[in-house]
Amino acid sequence: MNIGERKREALRYPIKVVDVSRTEIDPAVWGKNFPFEYDGFVKTKIDYGETTYGGSKPYDKLDRKPFLRRLWAGNAFAVDYKEERGHYYSQIDQAETKRVEVVSQPGACINCHAAEAPGLIEELGWVAFNKTPYNDLESRAMTGSSCADCHDPETMALRITRPAFRHAMEEAGVDLAKATRQEMRAYVCGQCHSEYYFKGDDKILTFPWSRGRTIDGIEEHYDDYGFADWTHRETGAPMIKIQHPEFELWGTGVHAQSGVACADCHMPYMREGSVKISDHWVRSPLVNVERACQTCHRLAKEELVARVAAIQDRTAGLLGRAETALISSIDAIVASRAAGAGEKELADALRLHRSAQMRWDFVASENSMGFHSPQEAARVLAEAIDLARQAELAARTTGRP
Amino acid sequence: MNIGERKREALRYPIKVVDVSRTEIDPAVWGKNFPFEYDGFVKTKIDYGETTYGGSKPYDKLDRKPFLRRLWAGNAFAVDYKEERGHYYSQIDQAETKRVEVVSQPGACINCHAAEAPGLIEELGWVAFNKTPYNDLESRAMTGSSCADCHDPETMALRITRPAFRHAMEEAGVDLAKATRQEMRAYVCGQCHSEYYFKGDDKILTFPWSRGRTIDGIEEHYDDYGFADWTHRETGAPMIKIQHPEFELWGTGVHAQSGVACADCHMPYMREGSVKISDHWVRSPLVNVERACQTCHRLAKEELVARVAAIQDRTAGLLGRAETALISSIDAIVASRAAGAGEKELADALRLHRSAQMRWDFVASENSMGFHSPQEAARVLAEAIDLARQAELAARTTGRP
Repeated sequence: MNIGERKREALRYPIKVVDVSRTEIDPAVWGKNFPFEYDGFVKTKIDYGETTYGGSKPYDKLDRKPFLRRLWAGNAFAVDYKEERGHYYSQIDQAETKRVEVVSQPGACINCHAAEAPGLIEELGWVAFNKTPYNDLESRAMTGSSCADCHDPETMALRITRPAFRHAMEEAGVDLAKATRQEMRAYVCGQCHSEYYFKGDDKILTFPWSRGRTIDGIEEHYDDYGFADWTHRETGAPMIKIQHPEFELWGTGVHAQSGVACADCHMPYMREGSVKISDHWVRSPLVNVERACQTCHRLAKEELVARVAAIQDRTAGLLGRAETALISSIDAIVASRAAGAGEKELADALRLHRSAQMRWDFVASENSMGFHSPQEAARVLAEAIDLARQAELAARTTGRP
Repeated sequence: MNIGERKREALRYPIKVVDVSRTEIDPAVWGKNFPFEYDGFVKTKIDYGETTYGGSKPYDKLDRKPFLRRLWAGNAFAVDYKEERGHYYSQIDQAETKRVEVVSQPGACINCHAAEAPGLIEELGWVAFNKTPYNDLESRAMTGSSCADCHDPETMALRITRPAFRHAMEEAGVDLAKATRQEMRAYVCGQCHSEYYFKGDDKILTFPWSRGRTIDGIEEHYDDYGFADWTHRETGAPMIKIQHPEFELWGTGVHAQSGVACADCHMPYMREGSVKISDHWVRSPLVNVERACQTCHRLAKEELVARVAAIQDRTAGLLGRAETALISSIDAIVASRAAGAGEKELADALRLHRSAQMRWDFVASENSMGFHSPQEAARVLAEAIDLARQAELAARTTGRP
């Protein structure tokens, strides 16, 4: 193919082969018009193996760190918690996890795990969609992540399709209609890669961002609301289970400050023939350093990987310290209860256990091992450690002079 | 002046007005040949005020944080500790501090505080120079920082003039003769801006780097050697007083990884007329953002200052947490002693107090409020907090079931 032919090919892309309807959620249909993006999306099925702290292999995290069962005692995550796979598996992994067997889950889960969510919300209404038991809706939510989650089928513009994100951003004063394309390249991801909870008896999917998106703000939000995800089976503390706050942690880091969006590293631009596309094989930048990092950072691949490793190893070390401190705090509270201490004597220790563990979980459940904001992750873990040790102190000195 | 005249001026610089002898330490003499650099050096006399966490104003740090007197109880720093001024004051401030009144200081102090040090070392020999009492040598050490500290008078090449740095780097396998100019732009600073101790009865100035230059390595070095700077007056723990480990902390950060030396930010290149020189008004980059930061970072000044503030504020917050934890650990040890605990019962608590406080001091006494390596500073403070709380736990549970 000569340059002229390549240019004509580029101008012909995307190919308008079919009309994609407003309600179409099958990626294969969208893929007829956008074959290069679709080829990438399909690759999210591939197991590309493990990176040091992540990757696509769904290994059992509870087997690797058995003490997690104690940290989450009484929560469904103590029963089943695996490293997540690619977008292809969004619904499959949700349907297969044992968590849905041991705890009754609301339909709200479907928000992020199935492409049918917007259609179901339109049909049932926001409240009914959230509160209907997950099992009652499961048969109607069979498609995982799809093109429609992020794109308008007419213009391919990025769009917000999930109400919880819209509600939270509106509450924060962000006019999504005015968002730039670059902002949208993070916002569409933030629709799901965020901490959330099910609010009230109607189990309304809600993002705890009324006081800001740091863990301190998130804690204030939950405290304002008097919320607990579950009661810790060993200590009796009212706990918060934090889940994948990638959008929140990224927002405090230097990449966000520099205007670098999720898609820049996880879906970097690439060429297919003469066509420039975003790589829809969403994955760890560590297996795609050339496009994900070296576009901006003109350094040797080995040097870049070493920098990531230094950041992640520091975070992992602090994570381990926080886990040790949390287990000690649980032991101390259990011992104090065994020695006769009640709710009144243990009030401080339980409050501290809650505060400490939600900070640890903010980093532990975030999928970058601190890379999205290295110093902030270390700060949060430092506070987790401090609060866990204070919980231990409070429990060990209960009723003592 | 037209371009031709400017180019001729540039070519005529530096001006060879006088011969500077091998032993010349008076900056004014060097300044005849290097008037632009000398003009900058003289400005280190200027009080340019305070930055948020530093600057040139010699305020009393003990008055601002009175609890430092407890953290350093029994050490000379509990008597007098001021924010440091510019290089012009190196010897003046050393001569005037009350620390030299309350504790007998060895001549080793002169190493960094007076330009006469290399001459005195040559005359007296390394051992005698170090162990001679400071007061006996003070009258022969009247010049503070000088050109000769870092430069060869013949070639103006950077050079190492202080044996302690040479010894430590040689021990680490670094061949200083092969150092690049860019490496030397950090090494000459590292001669003094490093943690040190006085080894043995001869008080030999030594850098504790045999196990590496992180605080973990430094602790191992001191533990290997069974060293303590002083005994804590309240707890009785054998303590280490860390002092200005700028070279060590910088070495773990992204600026060092990117080959950015101390001089790049603290002595950035500038123009005087048509001549390009290094700004010898060594100072905080925060008062020189245009040259210090914007040469590499093409971002608005306000944005750069905000990034520094975010990093330093996070560090300051953790520093405060560490201080609270350390004071609590001291209180617990004191209470435990009052209740009858002895050295054996308190052994763990005292070891932990030592470990915790040297980590806190590594960041507290380092002159960048964490900026030189943000995540590493947070990591070190996280460990300080953990160890201080463990010291408190050990003390509070001594002799208890």
